[in-house]
Amino acid sequence: MKRNERIGAIIKILSSNPNKIFTLNFFTNKFDSAKSSISEDIVIAKKIMENMKLGKIETLSGAAGGVKYMPVISKEDTKILLDHLCLKLRDENRVLAGGFLYTSDIMFTSSIIKRAGEVFATQFSDKKADYVVTVETKGIPLAVMTADALNLPLVVARRESKVSEGSTVSINYISGSTDRIQKMSLSKRAIKPGSRAIIIDDFMKGGGTARGIVDILTEFDIEVVGIGVLISTKKPEKKLVEEYVSLIFIEEVDVENKIIRAHPNNNL
Amino acid sequence: MKRNERIGAIIKILSSNPNKIFTLNFFTNKFDSAKSSISEDIVIAKKIMENMKLGKIETLSGAAGGVKYMPVISKEDTKILLDHLCLKLRDENRVLAGGFLYTSDIMFTSSIIKRAGEVFATQFSDKKADYVVTVETKGIPLAVMTADALNLPLVVARRESKVSEGSTVSINYISGSTDRIQKMSLSKRAIKPGSRAIIIDDFMKGGGTARGIVDILTEFDIEVVGIGVLISTKKPEKKLVEEYVSLIFIEEVDVENKIIRAHPNNNL
Repeated sequence: MKRNERIGAIIKILSSNPNKIFTLNFFTNKFDSAKSSISEDIVIAKKIMENMKLGKIETLSGAAGGVKYMPVISKEDTKILLDHLCLKLRDENRVLAGGFLYTSDIMFTSSIIKRAGEVFATQFSDKKADYVVTVETKGIPLAVMTADALNLPLVVARRESKVSEGSTVSINYISGSTDRIQKMSLSKRAIKPGSRAIIIDDFMKGGGTARGIVDILTEFDIEVVGIGVLISTKKPEKKLVEEYVSLIFIEEVDVENKIIRAHPNNNL
Repeated sequence: MKRNERIGAIIKILSSNPNKIFTLNFFTNKFDSAKSSISEDIVIAKKIMENMKLGKIETLSGAAGGVKYMPVISKEDTKILLDHLCLKLRDENRVLAGGFLYTSDIMFTSSIIKRAGEVFATQFSDKKADYVVTVETKGIPLAVMTADALNLPLVVARRESKVSEGSTVSINYISGSTDRIQKMSLSKRAIKPGSRAIIIDDFMKGGGTARGIVDILTEFDIEVVGIGVLISTKKPEKKLVEEYVSLIFIEEVDVENKIIRAHPNNNL
């Protein structure tokens, strides 16, 4: 195999498996090449990704050493994504009765949501999380893409406990948007007590749902080390959770004139 | 930029955006290179992917021409994935009361489900589908990964109609596994009448849920051109849908002895 063939294959394999460590031996076997050649290939691959801002290739030394790809989204690319999202969100046809917004098309478009998941992975990569947690339904694609980017298992809390979940822990919580008491349940098999989690959801208004997830995770003795939502509303300013990363803020939905005031989070 | 740098970047960009067409101009601008150089780069990239069985790069001529990456999973790699899945499924700790199996960990592990989505993309790539459709909840990660591999929008039917979905169409159907009447609802905004859809779900027993999705799509005048499930049971042999692709078959769950008889679909 020629050098450019090996580099191409290394980049494909690493970037298809974000945050998964591959040993040098994996590549020397796969390409039937010397360790020194593979090492040089990786140095070049690393430079390509860096120069083109396509993410980061990291080499890890030691017994558990090897090489891995981390999806790191640059500030510029984050801005491009968020501006594109805001433009889509401002479409007046999204306005529903009661000031609700139709966003399912965005939440279920994998190319957008995959990129947003990589933004969360960039934000939370140093949090040493063990899980990504969400609650059904609309946040699941975003959460699974974040989990994929971080190479973490996804955990999905359910609205009702299901027979296929085995024994579960359930809590009641108050949804900020509807002011109603809701139920959330989590399988005992889903998550290991004493670990760390990132919460990902599609939307936050009062923060009641995120608070609910924090509370149910407390029952499992899980520390929440990050909360990320795609969209949050500016009002109420005081949410039921303290720290969270929101990609987009909605200031106002003017139902009468069908105007949606949305702007990107410029701190990302 | 050197040739191997361009090739590495082309492979990363194409494979991160499956089934999305990039014009040659996109790359000539990005790399500030001549069209002839980029054409040669693409020929080499194509050969790398083919030789290493990492998917397929296809060039399309004409006005809408360009180059795209298609995740094509080889027979060998499909077998490796399915054998791995069967091994995981046979774990006796999965057996729940009533012969149900705990499978959420599998359905929510992105590295597995992403690969399974690529297997479905390989199977359904020639179906000219416009959408991937599922019903909440456990099949959503698999469906979003399939949609991503095929570059199609995902549509998620809900169990109950939600205010944030706008006006919806609802149907009642009988779930094969529980024999109960269930409801399914789909936003009118979610899908364009007269188009084609692939149905993806995590599990099929009687086929009632898949039948329900077919029925609700009929209300939208949508033709179903493929059905894929990760796991199906051998019994009942007669399902409520005629054709479907199942990656894994479960012959029997012996609750008393905690034995799960599962085998891969060897036709894939």
